[in-house]
Amino acid sequence: MAGAARIGIIMGSSSDAVVMADAARMLDSLGIPHEDQIVSAHRTPDRLATYARHAESSNFAAIIAGAGGAAHLPGMIASHTVIPVIGVPIMAYNNKNQTGDETFRLSAFGGLDSLLSITEMPAGAPVVSVGVNKAKNAGMYAAMILAVTDDSVRSALAEIKRSQHDAVLKESEELQSRGL
Amino acid sequence: MAGAARIGIIMGSSSDAVVMADAARMLDSLGIPHEDQIVSAHRTPDRLATYARHAESSNFAAIIAGAGGAAHLPGMIASHTVIPVIGVPIMAYNNKNQTGDETFRLSAFGGLDSLLSITEMPAGAPVVSVGVNKAKNAGMYAAMILAVTDDSVRSALAEIKRSQHDAVLKESEELQSRGL
Amino acid sequence: MAGAARIGIIMGSSSDAVVMADAARMLDSLGIPHEDQIVSAHRTPDRLATYARHAESSNFAAIIAGAGGAAHLPGMIASHTVIPVIGVPIMAYNNKNQTGDETFRLSAFGGLDSLLSITEMPAGAPVVSVGVNKAKNAGMYAAMILAVTDDSVRSALAEIKRSQHDAVLKESEELQSRGL
Amino acid sequence: MAGAARIGIIMGSSSDAVVMADAARMLDSLGIPHEDQIVSAHRTPDRLATYARHAESSNFAAIIAGAGGAAHLPGMIASHTVIPVIGVPIMAYNNKNQTGDETFRLSAFGGLDSLLSITEMPAGAPVVSVGVNKAKNAGMYAAMILAVTDDSVRSALAEIKRSQHDAVLKESEELQSRGL
Amino acid sequence: MAGAARIGIIMGSSSDAVVMADAARMLDSLGIPHEDQIVSAHRTPDRLATYARHAESSNFAAIIAGAGGAAHLPGMIASHTVIPVIGVPIMAYNNKNQTGDETFRLSAFGGLDSLLSITEMPAGAPVVSVGVNKAKNAGMYAAMILAVTDDSVRSALAEIKRSQHDAVLKESEELQSRGL
Amino acid sequence: MAGAARIGIIMGSSSDAVVMADAARMLDSLGIPHEDQIVSAHRTPDRLATYARHAESSNFAAIIAGAGGAAHLPGMIASHTVIPVIGVPIMAYNNKNQTGDETFRLSAFGGLDSLLSITEMPAGAPVVSVGVNKAKNAGMYAAMILAVTDDSVRSALAEIKRSQHDAVLKESEELQSRGL
Amino acid sequence: MAGAARIGIIMGSSSDAVVMADAARMLDSLGIPHEDQIVSAHRTPDRLATYARHAESSNFAAIIAGAGGAAHLPGMIASHTVIPVIGVPIMAYNNKNQTGDETFRLSAFGGLDSLLSITEMPAGAPVVSVGVNKAKNAGMYAAMILAVTDDSVRSALAEIKRSQHDAVLKESEELQSRGL
Amino acid sequence: MAGAARIGIIMGSSSDAVVMADAARMLDSLGIPHEDQIVSAHRTPDRLATYARHAESSNFAAIIAGAGGAAHLPGMIASHTVIPVIGVPIMAYNNKNQTGDETFRLSAFGGLDSLLSITEMPAGAPVVSVGVNKAKNAGMYAAMILAVTDDSVRSALAEIKRSQHDAVLKESEELQSRGL
Repeated sequence: MAGAARIGIIMGSSSDAVVMADAARMLDSLGIPHEDQIVSAHRTPDRLATYARHAESSNFAAIIAGAGGAAHLPGMIASHTVIPVIGVPIMAYNNKNQTGDETFRLSAFGGLDSLLSITEMPAGAPVVSVGVNKAKNAGMYAAMILAVTDDSVRSALAEIKRSQHDAVLKESEELQSRGL
Repeated sequence: MAGAARIGIIMGSSSDAVVMADAARMLDSLGIPHEDQIVSAHRTPDRLATYARHAESSNFAAIIAGAGGAAHLPGMIASHTVIPVIGVPIMAYNNKNQTGDETFRLSAFGGLDSLLSITEMPAGAPVVSVGVNKAKNAGMYAAMILAVTDDSVRSALAEIKRSQHDAVLKESEELQSRGL
Repeated sequence: MAGAARIGIIMGSSSDAVVMADAARMLDSLGIPHEDQIVSAHRTPDRLATYARHAESSNFAAIIAGAGGAAHLPGMIASHTVIPVIGVPIMAYNNKNQTGDETFRLSAFGGLDSLLSITEMPAGAPVVSVGVNKAKNAGMYAAMILAVTDDSVRSALAEIKRSQHDAVLKESEELQSRGL
Repeated sequence: MAGAARIGIIMGSSSDAVVMADAARMLDSLGIPHEDQIVSAHRTPDRLATYARHAESSNFAAIIAGAGGAAHLPGMIASHTVIPVIGVPIMAYNNKNQTGDETFRLSAFGGLDSLLSITEMPAGAPVVSVGVNKAKNAGMYAAMILAVTDDSVRSALAEIKRSQHDAVLKESEELQSRGL
Repeated sequence: MAGAARIGIIMGSSSDAVVMADAARMLDSLGIPHEDQIVSAHRTPDRLATYARHAESSNFAAIIAGAGGAAHLPGMIASHTVIPVIGVPIMAYNNKNQTGDETFRLSAFGGLDSLLSITEMPAGAPVVSVGVNKAKNAGMYAAMILAVTDDSVRSALAEIKRSQHDAVLKESEELQSRGL
Repeated sequence: MAGAARIGIIMGSSSDAVVMADAARMLDSLGIPHEDQIVSAHRTPDRLATYARHAESSNFAAIIAGAGGAAHLPGMIASHTVIPVIGVPIMAYNNKNQTGDETFRLSAFGGLDSLLSITEMPAGAPVVSVGVNKAKNAGMYAAMILAVTDDSVRSALAEIKRSQHDAVLKESEELQSRGL
Repeated sequence: MAGAARIGIIMGSSSDAVVMADAARMLDSLGIPHEDQIVSAHRTPDRLATYARHAESSNFAAIIAGAGGAAHLPGMIASHTVIPVIGVPIMAYNNKNQTGDETFRLSAFGGLDSLLSITEMPAGAPVVSVGVNKAKNAGMYAAMILAVTDDSVRSALAEIKRSQHDAVLKESEELQSRGL
Repeated sequence: MAGAARIGIIMGSSSDAVVMADAARMLDSLGIPHEDQIVSAHRTPDRLATYARHAESSNFAAIIAGAGGAAHLPGMIASHTVIPVIGVPIMAYNNKNQTGDETFRLSAFGGLDSLLSITEMPAGAPVVSVGVNKAKNAGMYAAMILAVTDDSVRSALAEIKRSQHDAVLKESEELQSRGL
């Protein structure tokens, strides 16, 4: 996406990319440039402050931070900046296990661990969260923050809502005609 | 607080006010005018669209919506507008029960019901949540959204973070001197 | 099914149809006409009041409302009418994920989020729920509401219970004869 | 309340009466006669079938059944009749413990055990549930079942909704005038 | 298994047989005759008292009762007799769903609903439970009840424990020799 | 209680005595002698095998083992004997905290940790559990094990059930006469 | 405690001190010098690396880190050092609420949020946890790490275990003599 | 791995080996000799004390103990020694069920049962836990305990952290160049 990035997307591991791509796709569809990086709170702790400064000097309007398990990334970035951070709790699935077979629920706690780790921040250090794996909503929420002062983004978001509305009407008509 | 309100605070019931006042206090301390109303998704459903239009015509930069139990309010307001909605799951406590005695945990599910009802919105209808009863963080996050384009709010937020930082240092020194 | 619909079946998304079809099949087997629509609390909020008025003018005896995730639909329809609403919490499964593979547990919280969002309504705004994905039971309960004043439905329901009873006896005899 | 009872209220133990009284009060306020009994699924199992026959011969339009812990009562009554059963999961509180002191959370599982025991009935044996301790909503839902064919009850319910609506407006105005 | 049955095995549905067969196999391996039936608390409620009388006249030393979902069967049988009831909470899996595909977790609550419905019986109506799907342990516990007054069963149980002990030793030696 | 003890009651800590006394009272009321000890799996591990041998040489018909938190005691005793062990998961309450104030829910997990630690034993090592803090039911279940071969205990248990039955009838009549 | 500190105790907030004092008392009783500080991952993020360097230059054998809610502190310290970190999930209680009354369960999730946030660290970044509020055990575990190469600490720990053992024996004798 | 073992790895069952092998691989990669055994708390209870004595006479610096379900092994070993025990809660998966089909979530409680059984030890009997199935972290933590007094292990651990750091940087660059 051309132009200076207005939103930063980060995640704790390259395995989160399959989920976080939904945020990128939403921003792309709205024509909002974004920059995507991997920042691990636990493996690259020195990058937390560095990334926060980079985000501030880049004038990012929001940072979308996806993380699974202990999910410290959103909160730790937020401790270094006042740019709004939108957390995405990630529940991994469909990875390979040690014996080469598929496993179908790698996150022992279904993403609840990550959701609570993102939201239960102490007073004075706010982070917000969307639902588990709901990176698309995080992308859209970041756009809504831009839309506070950007009428073209606001119009584009309103258009998305209209088209979602019409799609439901169409599906309902189809259902009524064919029956359940 | 003088001036046109920049943030809307709503809640589903007057019993939520004791928690939501933390959001108001945070905004007051930052000099950000806000407007406070009770909007019940279930008892005043006609007000959902009306309030959303009011919020848009008032140019609110964010809506802070507190609700307990089924907690439909944040999601239902969000369905009517693209203004960012910040949900506050509320766990009631210290109310009176039927026999006039105090009860200490009215929310059977400790706020988890409300947290999930706020975050698990379908793709295309984003709402975000802070932690249970963390209205103070919701107020601060609303200010962070304003700060995206308002340097004075950004400075005030940075100052809060600095003073929180210094308070921890002072508490740590006291702890070290007196011992655990 | 011929005749004026006596029960309304709605759901938040076309992906819920695979589960909600169990309600339709139960009503069909009892000869009770029903009308099926998709009404999204979040994508078509304007339809909530419209649908409630339609249900009232159609003299529906009950509305069966299926929804997953935040599951606001049953409660929001109930806020607009005094027709009894029967909620069905939906736990999605066997959908495709982003990479085209099957995922086996899309609902991060196993339907608990939806069950609580349906039942934990505030005092004065009742909604009831059947178990997770138990749309068949919702269809049968709707018939039980009709049966309060319709003896033919009551007889048909009693006949279902009798045949269920006899089926268990038969299975038990088979088990006893072949052993565990 | 004079007149033949139209709704049966039952509960598993006399200690449930403090919660179930909310259902009675709601029905009383609507002028709907009800009959209240204690039926224990585990201590008076012979009464399950007897009570179900009594409910049928009394032409009860609905049975409100409150129970805590394992909460088998709603499901077991439903196994004997096709009258709609509305379950109320009960979380006990404010009872005395063995040492004579108050205990504040006797239900180890916050009512979740009872909610699931009421809703997770097998296909073909429907029971519905309101939220934990929400007996008032169960009373109102029973009235909504009566209202399907009784216009005076329907009018009374609509009036309750109107007065709830007006009460929220009044509380909101008070909040706006005094501020949070 | 020849001889008069000493243990009754019951389950709520024929789909529980795949799990409950573990109890039968354990009893078979110990030479303890058992009788297997399907008794549905909700579809054949009249059989609860009948089965309890049958169990008493058959002098069953214990009743093993498996049930999933709401799992009322163990508690309802126990309400009719003082024969010890051993509950087995059942989490179904590997069944077909409506579209003919496999589903991998039919029990929305992982068996927790059934475990709590079995154990949280009111004071004075005891039922005990083994772990989820642990029918083998239920069979062995029933044998332990027989062993209180039957030395040959006691010896057979002690022999099982010895062989389990030796099997672990052997596996440990193999592990040590080949390494992890 | 005179005579040789027929049931062993053990618990992990003296603070469990307030709950476990309910088991003793039930056995006392049935005239069944019992022996009460404190055996800590973690602080007196050497006593596990010793106690098991003592229980076998004393011909205990059952061991009631109460434990909170990790609750290893029931399972560890069961690993040393084939006497049936009945676990009681204990949720502590009303203890003093460090500052001398009352705390009302010391068990962070409401007894669920203990319930699962007791029931989720591996195949071949069965332990059963009653509900959280339900020591009275554990006492009654121990008596039911004795009653398998002791008609006087069986009669006494039947009498308890009869008196419970009559008490419910009386409470129900009182409720009906005074109304909810 | 005289001498160079061998263990570092940190916590996220001064309100955690009432719980963490148990760790200090345990170390004091073993004669092990410790240093106590407040380090907030979210309010003093710059201190994370600084503290880790301080801990390494002080040759701490272990760091005990207590934190409630999102509880990022243990994991974030561990990201900066290879000194073993022992996490203590903290469930706050008995604090004052906004209206000045006591509240008895401030931690909405009973410490589960903190426990999972501490343990569910990604592979390659280990942190371990004791149970909720079990700071005493964290202190003792830190001593056990010292005892790997310090025989006097090992002897002192063995003595604690012996005295715990004897205390149980004494309590058991008292229980047996007075009866339950 | 040559040389005297410095770490003991134990597990409750041979089926745990697939998970526990991650601990062995981590230690192997650091050149730390370890000894692997199967010790079942419930099937070989006599080995608990024996193994603890063996661990002490072998001068193990730590014992890594993996266990699923009730997971008593870590706590029971810890009751016999002051060597630090690191628990690994195990959630089984991809095993065969009774009918020969694959089952995808054998642990009904997702490992939460084991996590709580390991951490919620009574005061005075500390055991610590890593996250569910995180045996790799347990191996690394054991090395961190050795590193307290072994500079070569400390250097090797620091090198692992450096290479993890660099791997994240590389992945991030790749992500930025190809985009999400």
